[in-house]
Amino acid sequence: MATLQDIAVSAFINILIAFAFLLAFALLRLQPINEPVYFPKRYLNRARTSPRSSANFVNLNPWTCLTFLNWMRPAMVMSEAEIVSQAGLDSAAFLRIYTLGLKIFVPVTVIALLIIIPLNVSNGTLSFLERDLDMSNIDKLSISNVCPQSIRFFVQIGLEYLFTIWTCLMLYKEYDNVASMRLHFLASHGRRVELFTVVVRNVPRVPSQSISDAVNHFFETNYGENYVGHQGVYNGNKFAKLVRKRESLQNGLDHNQLKFKRHPEKRPSKKTGFCGLWGKRVDSINYYKKEKRDLEERMAKERQKVINDPKSILPVAFVSFNLRWAAAVCAQTQQSKNPTLWLTDCAPEPRDVYWKNLAIPSFSLSIRRIVISLAVFALVFFYMIPIAFVQSLANLDGLEKVAPFLRPVVKQKFIKSFLQGFLPGLALKIFLYLLPKVLMLMSKIEGHISLSMLERRTASKYYLFMLVNVFLGSIVTGTAFEQLHAFLHQAPTQIPRTVGVSIPMRATFFITYIMVDGWAGIASEILRLKPLIIFHLKNMLFVKTERDKEKAMNPGSVDFPETLPSLQLYFLLGIVYAVVTPILLPFILVFFAFAYLVYRHQIINVYNQRYESAAAFWPHIHSRIITGLLISQLHLLGLLSTKKAAISTPLLVILSILTLSFHKYCKHRFEPAFRKYALEEALANDMAEPDQELDQDLRGAYSHPIFQSFKAEESVPEEVESLLVNVDGR
Amino acid sequence: MATLQDIAVSAFINILIAFAFLLAFALLRLQPINEPVYFPKRYLNRARTSPRSSANFVNLNPWTCLTFLNWMRPAMVMSEAEIVSQAGLDSAAFLRIYTLGLKIFVPVTVIALLIIIPLNVSNGTLSFLERDLDMSNIDKLSISNVCPQSIRFFVQIGLEYLFTIWTCLMLYKEYDNVASMRLHFLASHGRRVELFTVVVRNVPRVPSQSISDAVNHFFETNYGENYVGHQGVYNGNKFAKLVRKRESLQNGLDHNQLKFKRHPEKRPSKKTGFCGLWGKRVDSINYYKKEKRDLEERMAKERQKVINDPKSILPVAFVSFNLRWAAAVCAQTQQSKNPTLWLTDCAPEPRDVYWKNLAIPSFSLSIRRIVISLAVFALVFFYMIPIAFVQSLANLDGLEKVAPFLRPVVKQKFIKSFLQGFLPGLALKIFLYLLPKVLMLMSKIEGHISLSMLERRTASKYYLFMLVNVFLGSIVTGTAFEQLHAFLHQAPTQIPRTVGVSIPMRATFFITYIMVDGWAGIASEILRLKPLIIFHLKNMLFVKTERDKEKAMNPGSVDFPETLPSLQLYFLLGIVYAVVTPILLPFILVFFAFAYLVYRHQIINVYNQRYESAAAFWPHIHSRIITGLLISQLHLLGLLSTKKAAISTPLLVILSILTLSFHKYCKHRFEPAFRKYALEEALANDMAEPDQELDQDLRGAYSHPIFQSFKAEESVPEEVESLLVNVDGR
Repeated sequence: MATLQDIAVSAFINILIAFAFLLAFALLRLQPINEPVYFPKRYLNRARTSPRSSANFVNLNPWTCLTFLNWMRPAMVMSEAEIVSQAGLDSAAFLRIYTLGLKIFVPVTVIALLIIIPLNVSNGTLSFLERDLDMSNIDKLSISNVCPQSIRFFVQIGLEYLFTIWTCLMLYKEYDNVASMRLHFLASHGRRVELFTVVVRNVPRVPSQSISDAVNHFFETNYGENYVGHQGVYNGNKFAKLVRKRESLQNGLDHNQLKFKRHPEKRPSKKTGFCGLWGKRVDSINYYKKEKRDLEERMAKERQKVINDPKSILPVAFVSFNLRWAAAVCAQTQQSKNPTLWLTDCAPEPRDVYWKNLAIPSFSLSIRRIVISLAVFALVFFYMIPIAFVQSLANLDGLEKVAPFLRPVVKQKFIKSFLQGFLPGLALKIFLYLLPKVLMLMSKIEGHISLSMLERRTASKYYLFMLVNVFLGSIVTGTAFEQLHAFLHQAPTQIPRTVGVSIPMRATFFITYIMVDGWAGIASEILRLKPLIIFHLKNMLFVKTERDKEKAMNPGSVDFPETLPSLQLYFLLGIVYAVVTPILLPFILVFFAFAYLVYRHQIINVYNQRYESAAAFWPHIHSRIITGLLISQLHLLGLLSTKKAAISTPLLVILSILTLSFHKYCKHRFEPAFRKYALEEALANDMAEPDQELDQDLRGAYSHPIFQSFKAEESVPEEVESLLVNVDGR
Repeated sequence: MATLQDIAVSAFINILIAFAFLLAFALLRLQPINEPVYFPKRYLNRARTSPRSSANFVNLNPWTCLTFLNWMRPAMVMSEAEIVSQAGLDSAAFLRIYTLGLKIFVPVTVIALLIIIPLNVSNGTLSFLERDLDMSNIDKLSISNVCPQSIRFFVQIGLEYLFTIWTCLMLYKEYDNVASMRLHFLASHGRRVELFTVVVRNVPRVPSQSISDAVNHFFETNYGENYVGHQGVYNGNKFAKLVRKRESLQNGLDHNQLKFKRHPEKRPSKKTGFCGLWGKRVDSINYYKKEKRDLEERMAKERQKVINDPKSILPVAFVSFNLRWAAAVCAQTQQSKNPTLWLTDCAPEPRDVYWKNLAIPSFSLSIRRIVISLAVFALVFFYMIPIAFVQSLANLDGLEKVAPFLRPVVKQKFIKSFLQGFLPGLALKIFLYLLPKVLMLMSKIEGHISLSMLERRTASKYYLFMLVNVFLGSIVTGTAFEQLHAFLHQAPTQIPRTVGVSIPMRATFFITYIMVDGWAGIASEILRLKPLIIFHLKNMLFVKTERDKEKAMNPGSVDFPETLPSLQLYFLLGIVYAVVTPILLPFILVFFAFAYLVYRHQIINVYNQRYESAAAFWPHIHSRIITGLLISQLHLLGLLSTKKAAISTPLLVILSILTLSFHKYCKHRFEPAFRKYALEEALANDMAEPDQELDQDLRGAYSHPIFQSFKAEESVPEEVESLLVNVDGR
């Protein structure tokens, strides 16, 4: 067990690191050359109003270092309404998670520190056992220090009740706020096409009819004059590949033409082989022009194929109505006698559609989901196995066997020790770096059709991984698989005891975890070291035009799949340790406050959200905090049963039942606002804005982005346009 | 363990009992005096066409005994379509459960008997241990006889796969059939008011508006011309009590007037006290007339109060539309921004409404549900505790203490032994007799608003009770509470082993159970001994008019809360024992075939269903058979792991996952047909029958039955009539 001094040292180091990051940020952000990295929004605004006015000089005034916290004030002054209108509701709701954390944990911390720590210290069992009374052990501040069968455990139980009630109260208020913000957002932001549109899947294929005719016929019959038209969906995945290829060819062409312009004495040339490393040497400009021409011919053919081949029209359509009311009715009801056909759902925002997955045949969806849930289970519990395998391959004997020619190199002492010390760790690092990407890939295989849904699903998988491998994993030693084995072969009543005994022991580990991941990690977020380096590299190597520069900027967005689960882990830690080892709480408070400031700054100045889901992630936040409460109660139950305070069991079971009932009530009360659009609300909004010029908005809103990008440059194929079929010839 | 001979003896006795019942039935059903009990449908038809033609003579022809199976032929000839049109879809679907049982188990029995029994017998471990080879032990036929690690277990696993696939195939076809029968039934049976109606709960109370105005305003705004009107719901529970009281007074009056008419020399008189045993003697006719007059005054006052007091109008309404389409839309969508208000749902059939529960305030519903689920849990696992308590009170020492004056009686030897031998058993008998009533009461407290839902909920509670206390209870000895304790303190991986080892041992118990409960029990169902006795008692004592006689008949209906769970238990037994001890299967087959005949006869000739839910119970049947499959797989897994055939575990886990996937698919494919009314279907039916004279049907269809009964006899209060508010003054 670490002592208080150890923690103090660790805190000092981490604070130092955080300050270093902030100082670096203060220096770098003032350099105008870094503006596209640290203030992309401001940069874009200026670049668009007065292009080429950005002076690329370097600011070396040392006094700016003293202003290294200056960014906090402007980050705080912007009101929430402004954030919503500038950055969208997703960002505003994301910030609300941090304020929720502060609202929950500030009073909890004060009460816990004032009541529990004196209580635990004064009633020392541990101090009786040891001689030295110099408070060297952090356990003295925790519940482990209280005598078995002490009446003081009722104080702990009372506080658990109090904290649970307080947390639930805050959760309720926040859910209420976010739900009404969502309704207000949907109502106020002009005419949002997704409210008029429904995505229909599993359109049945009838031999004599095209998909488009079938959709028209079905919705004309069932919705009459409310049906405006529909947008068919093409399987454009192959065409999209060609578009990407053409883009890279265009880039090469631009680059070479620019080169030629700068140095007209020498026509650029290249080799045709892989990466220009070998093959016949040709004239670059001619080469790229020819390649591009060939590709465009292929694209035209592919486009014709996509449009004419009935098989490339997917049994999916975006159906538009002239009233929000009709779209809400259509999305919420069962259309067909056969409930597996004509599946309707609210359409995601056009930017939010994940086009690739629309091509997945519906019958494979359920198989995919089963396979992926098995895969996630395997990944969470058995992830150590492949890593251990790679590690065993990567050791020296393995290397020698696989590649005998490396033997002389490996024999050298320095390289040997480097490989032995570094390679095994590297495998784990690479795995942890790849994990979110792997989870996202899994979510994509599951076949969700919107980016927001994909990110939410990835976040829940990642949370599961963290819960098992970080929270529980650090409690029971060994790999997750060993834990699973231990839990399966233990009586169910034994599990809370095991958890209850080990959690207080791990407080110091989590304190250092919070400081490293929460404090220094957040400070590195504001520094944006990776985007900074990448931007400057790109700027030096590839950027030729202003458009390229904009592309290289990559302002990024809130990384929901990674930040939400780690946030939820902090909530879990705070809730679980509140009554057990409250000394952990101030560390969490610092995290919430600091992260709130940093993300506020980033959202106002940097991030550019890819889509807007109107805070659709909030129900997940809510239910995971409730899960945290339940874990905390179960843990206290186990802990107290080892302290021979078994009388407490029914009290805590009642609390768990009450917590679950609260969750059920909230789900019933608020969740529909995030899943369905109430008819009353839809009709009221329809009345407020009658449907003038609706067609204009709907036309092409849901056409595949590759066709849109094509449209922007060349003549639009008539056939694609005509897909927005209009019922009464408008 | 019972030997084969024991089973043969038991079978002989039970067959004898069943034959005795059938003989008694053959004799009794031919007595015209019993016609109202055995053929109430025929009796009613005749009584209505030519009253007083039923000759009350006794048929004593002994040859009728030989025709004791004659009833089977007419029971078989009626087609399913006729049954649907005469007795409703519920009854037809109920019969389909038995044919499903036959379809599943006939091939399974043949294969199991042909393959598994020779396999088990030839590979005897038990026969090596014992000397005598005379096949006295039924275990020789079961899987217990196979050597550990034998390759033959793969045959068992193969058969488990085969049986699972076959069962799923049959389940799928049957679900498909029943779902399409339901759709056809709803579409074909003329204009069913419930398809045009939606029940709305949680109508918000606005101070300035009555509930009725609020409903009108809301639906006029949101559904425009599709809204026809609504029927408010009064809290008529108090009024209903008065109606019942008036009925009994009317009965007394009729009785005394009849008495006076027969013996005009003596005016009947009675005492006013309890049951006419003491008090002042008064003239009966005058007494009843006065009492009735007083009561009617009170009823008029109560009626005025109900109609005028705004508090007695409940925040519930039956809202009617002019199109099935609009009703389907309204039932399936969220109406209000606040999802706890204006909750809409498909209306139950008018006969099916359980009026009392409409008065339950909505906020108490979730509390009621939690309380009841805790109570069901307690009842299932701790039911032995109160019984043991009553039994301990009912023993002699307890009696002596509570009632010392009984001492001389108790001291007598005969009474003593009677009490000691009889009382403890009686407590359990009374409990088991009361159990379905208690479960029904619990379901009523849960607050469901339709009888069919109440019966379904009661059935699932009863099934849980049977599963724990009959199926598992006979496996692990001791009370259910002791089992729960054992399971909680065991490692989860140990549970399948415990179950796996004990199930084959209990085969003989279940064989006798099937014979007693399934064979003799079903034969007693056709005899209708209880209704027979009650009818003749009532006929002698109370029946004065033809209407009374009709009332005394009580044809009854299929008792879903009791028959469905026991049917599901038979499915479970058959599926679990199919690969383990297939000798049990023929007994189940006999049960299914015999019960099918008996219930077919009863449905055609006797039962009078109280409501029609259009086979809404089918999804439960389906999912419980799937549960049976899963239990069977889990059990085989445990059994084989004790036989050191651990290699089989993954094979059976895969089978379980496949079974679950099949269940999920079926749920997705068919269940919506039982919960929602597809818009396409609704609109097609609307087109087929345009809305002529719809108002006529809807008017008063959902008024409280007590107001209806009142209406039939006296002038209808205008206020009640006017509750069917009409939007455009039609």
